[in-house]
Amino acid sequence: MSSDHELTLAEVARLVGGELVDGDPEASIQGVNTLADAGPCEASFLANPKYRSELATTRAGVILVSQREAEVCTRPVIKVQDPYLAFGLLQRHFHPLPKGRGHVHNTAVLHETAKLGSHVDVGAHVVIGPEVEIGDHSIIGPGVVIGHGVRIGRDCIIHANVVIEDGSQLGDRVILQAGAVIGSDGFGYAWTGREHLKIPQTGRVVLQDDVEVGANTCIDRGALGDTVVEAGVKLDNQIQIGHNVRIGARSIMASQVGISGSTTIGAGCQVGGQVGFAGHIHVAPGVRVAAKSGVASDLGPGTYAGIPAMPHRLWLRVCAIIQRLPELVKQLR
Amino acid sequence: MSSDHELTLAEVARLVGGELVDGDPEASIQGVNTLADAGPCEASFLANPKYRSELATTRAGVILVSQREAEVCTRPVIKVQDPYLAFGLLQRHFHPLPKGRGHVHNTAVLHETAKLGSHVDVGAHVVIGPEVEIGDHSIIGPGVVIGHGVRIGRDCIIHANVVIEDGSQLGDRVILQAGAVIGSDGFGYAWTGREHLKIPQTGRVVLQDDVEVGANTCIDRGALGDTVVEAGVKLDNQIQIGHNVRIGARSIMASQVGISGSTTIGAGCQVGGQVGFAGHIHVAPGVRVAAKSGVASDLGPGTYAGIPAMPHRLWLRVCAIIQRLPELVKQLR
Amino acid sequence: MSSDHELTLAEVARLVGGELVDGDPEASIQGVNTLADAGPCEASFLANPKYRSELATTRAGVILVSQREAEVCTRPVIKVQDPYLAFGLLQRHFHPLPKGRGHVHNTAVLHETAKLGSHVDVGAHVVIGPEVEIGDHSIIGPGVVIGHGVRIGRDCIIHANVVIEDGSQLGDRVILQAGAVIGSDGFGYAWTGREHLKIPQTGRVVLQDDVEVGANTCIDRGALGDTVVEAGVKLDNQIQIGHNVRIGARSIMASQVGISGSTTIGAGCQVGGQVGFAGHIHVAPGVRVAAKSGVASDLGPGTYAGIPAMPHRLWLRVCAIIQRLPELVKQLR
Repeated sequence: MSSDHELTLAEVARLVGGELVDGDPEASIQGVNTLADAGPCEASFLANPKYRSELATTRAGVILVSQREAEVCTRPVIKVQDPYLAFGLLQRHFHPLPKGRGHVHNTAVLHETAKLGSHVDVGAHVVIGPEVEIGDHSIIGPGVVIGHGVRIGRDCIIHANVVIEDGSQLGDRVILQAGAVIGSDGFGYAWTGREHLKIPQTGRVVLQDDVEVGANTCIDRGALGDTVVEAGVKLDNQIQIGHNVRIGARSIMASQVGISGSTTIGAGCQVGGQVGFAGHIHVAPGVRVAAKSGVASDLGPGTYAGIPAMPHRLWLRVCAIIQRLPELVKQLR
Repeated sequence: MSSDHELTLAEVARLVGGELVDGDPEASIQGVNTLADAGPCEASFLANPKYRSELATTRAGVILVSQREAEVCTRPVIKVQDPYLAFGLLQRHFHPLPKGRGHVHNTAVLHETAKLGSHVDVGAHVVIGPEVEIGDHSIIGPGVVIGHGVRIGRDCIIHANVVIEDGSQLGDRVILQAGAVIGSDGFGYAWTGREHLKIPQTGRVVLQDDVEVGANTCIDRGALGDTVVEAGVKLDNQIQIGHNVRIGARSIMASQVGISGSTTIGAGCQVGGQVGFAGHIHVAPGVRVAAKSGVASDLGPGTYAGIPAMPHRLWLRVCAIIQRLPELVKQLR
Repeated sequence: MSSDHELTLAEVARLVGGELVDGDPEASIQGVNTLADAGPCEASFLANPKYRSELATTRAGVILVSQREAEVCTRPVIKVQDPYLAFGLLQRHFHPLPKGRGHVHNTAVLHETAKLGSHVDVGAHVVIGPEVEIGDHSIIGPGVVIGHGVRIGRDCIIHANVVIEDGSQLGDRVILQAGAVIGSDGFGYAWTGREHLKIPQTGRVVLQDDVEVGANTCIDRGALGDTVVEAGVKLDNQIQIGHNVRIGARSIMASQVGISGSTTIGAGCQVGGQVGFAGHIHVAPGVRVAAKSGVASDLGPGTYAGIPAMPHRLWLRVCAIIQRLPELVKQLR
């Protein structure tokens, strides 16, 4: 939108690695919008075939499309391999992630032993504990509370009212959405015969580089060792990660997933919303689990669904039968 | 409880649109309580037949009941069409919603370009960003963080430690319970072949008039267009609303519901707790979905339940059979 | 770790009520760690048989084990009845729960009528309302907001950014993890024919002694009477407790459980993650409910699982059959 980010169609094509078809290479693009709302100075894209009908009526200045959709467009198009990725690259151009500029609000309470890198932003009413380290250009939003000995890397974005408990370790470019809680106590009690004895949770939370954590998501500290979220993992809102869980690199989980203690999820997994994982189990790398599934035991490579989780294809057949059970039982009789 | 709200039985009957039977019209009522706990100066009500037995023993000064329950009462009664609504109207009389009186705490940090209407309350340690507008008599609780360009209507109540991210638009009489997050980034990434590229989320959240949002509920901003919660929608605690979702007017959802991106829910829907909706689907107006259901595709008018969601009647029959499956299989053998 | 907590093996055995076998009673133990990570000055333990193979390779100074595991160890062992409890007792020795020391941060906003006991810690940017009482040695973390008339007992630990709404009553030794919300409005509306009328929620939340509440968990205030969590109950993260729920003493619930309004859970129940309870139902004392179950009606004594919840043994048989349904149907044809 701001004109200093303006691109020509030729520049857009180069940025997204695509081929411009039927458009003026010098025409100007100033932003991205949906097919329905884009104007002649905006790019749009078709990634989900559900919206194909809008190709006919869009006023977009250019449309990012895959090879096979390109013919039906009456507007200029840029043919790309992955329209959604092309859209993402363009959005990143027009809306680069914010960076800290060194503004520390005078209401922030910083412990004298806390070390801020250069150009760190610290919002109003932030509380930063002893021996905290924060890397260059990171942004700490208003109302954030950072405990003793926390380490935050560079280019991190911590949204408002996040809590990062003592000892948590965050890599570079970590993003925490508002209200997330990092390093809450794991849920560990021993029964004495009369009461549940709280077991002090002395491990930490480690979030490696490029992790993003959704709003109001909670990640418990380890009971003894650490809870580890490996590089590039993306967690949606309201997810619960138990103590000593390990999530492999680049795994991605939709909202309201719950992972019980000491479970390990392999790298590159994809987990739908509201899935639950039992404790002390292993999920192989690359596993996909459909929304609402309940995973009670180890999973080898594959795609799973259901309660209890089973191979996805089997689940689809089971679902079809379940709905016909009343009819089947009648026929049997 | 405070005597300036005191009513006579006759006034109570008028307020709730009911008919007083067997009671002194001049007797005084000073509050509302449960059948079990109400004293002679309090009104009570019977809305759930589970509590009918308490009619015999209650000491309430008057009981709000439906026509058919009126006979069994030994205490004065007011016959009404909907005892629960009558109870609600009476509670609103004795406990009107609070209104701002113009108290701005001296620890609140208000940007110089923020505009407060008349009689706005702003609690301690609040942070209000640039170009924010807040309407008359609204109450901003302690620790609330309000981002750039947020608009809040009149008579709103924002509880403690809520976060309202940049650009969110709230109508009049909106209530946000504590810890709610409005305008967190939607969960949007494109896979580059090496990593999940975060796609900047540049849409907004729009909460229309009379929306209420529960504690720790999260509503993500749109990816491009807006996430919209229409007038009179009530959302319970710990609900997750994905980017570009639209919820139709006066729909009501119990806690821990999750709605994936770009799904639209019609007006006047009722959704039970822990229900999940897939993305990019349409739910017709007036649909009812039972608790814990999983909705994976479009729903026409009706009542649904189950995973995957099916007509509620079918689900009830399926449930009955599922529990008899071991026995049925045995019989078959 | 700090040497003033150092113990000899003999002292460890006495503390956990176990019998030292094959170890120097005067050897020093300075902490506890996992079998994999423990060094010669640390104790470890075996509570979960999944980790038995690590007994052979651990370098731990002593291992807390049950009678039947004791033989296979090559390191000194202390035989105990319950290794997990022994581990817990030892962790409590090395890491006692923190106690307030009387530090009140100068940015905290305390109403003039609030009464703090001796040695209460109050963190930065805390807000404490009128007529609040806080008992001796309690710790109020940074950013916590405490409403009008709240009572907090002694030795409580309230983590950062918790919100405790007006009138909530907390016993002694209550622990609230970060972001928890106590006393949000219950979800109560009456339909007027045109809109959902919000019913003022005038009850309170009562958390009795030794209750622990997880991060971002929400407990709604009662509509009229109170929502009560009895002594020694432990609630994990992101749990939702509706208005007028009552949870019996020493019950324990894993994360993301939801309990609808007016339901009562007996004492000593154990509830797995993501379980949902309908409203107005009764669950007997000592009931166990497996993760992800949906409880729609009263439960007598027993162990339950499934949607809808059924006896756990039946559920296991049902699960086995469900996965074989496609095959069974084929055979039938």
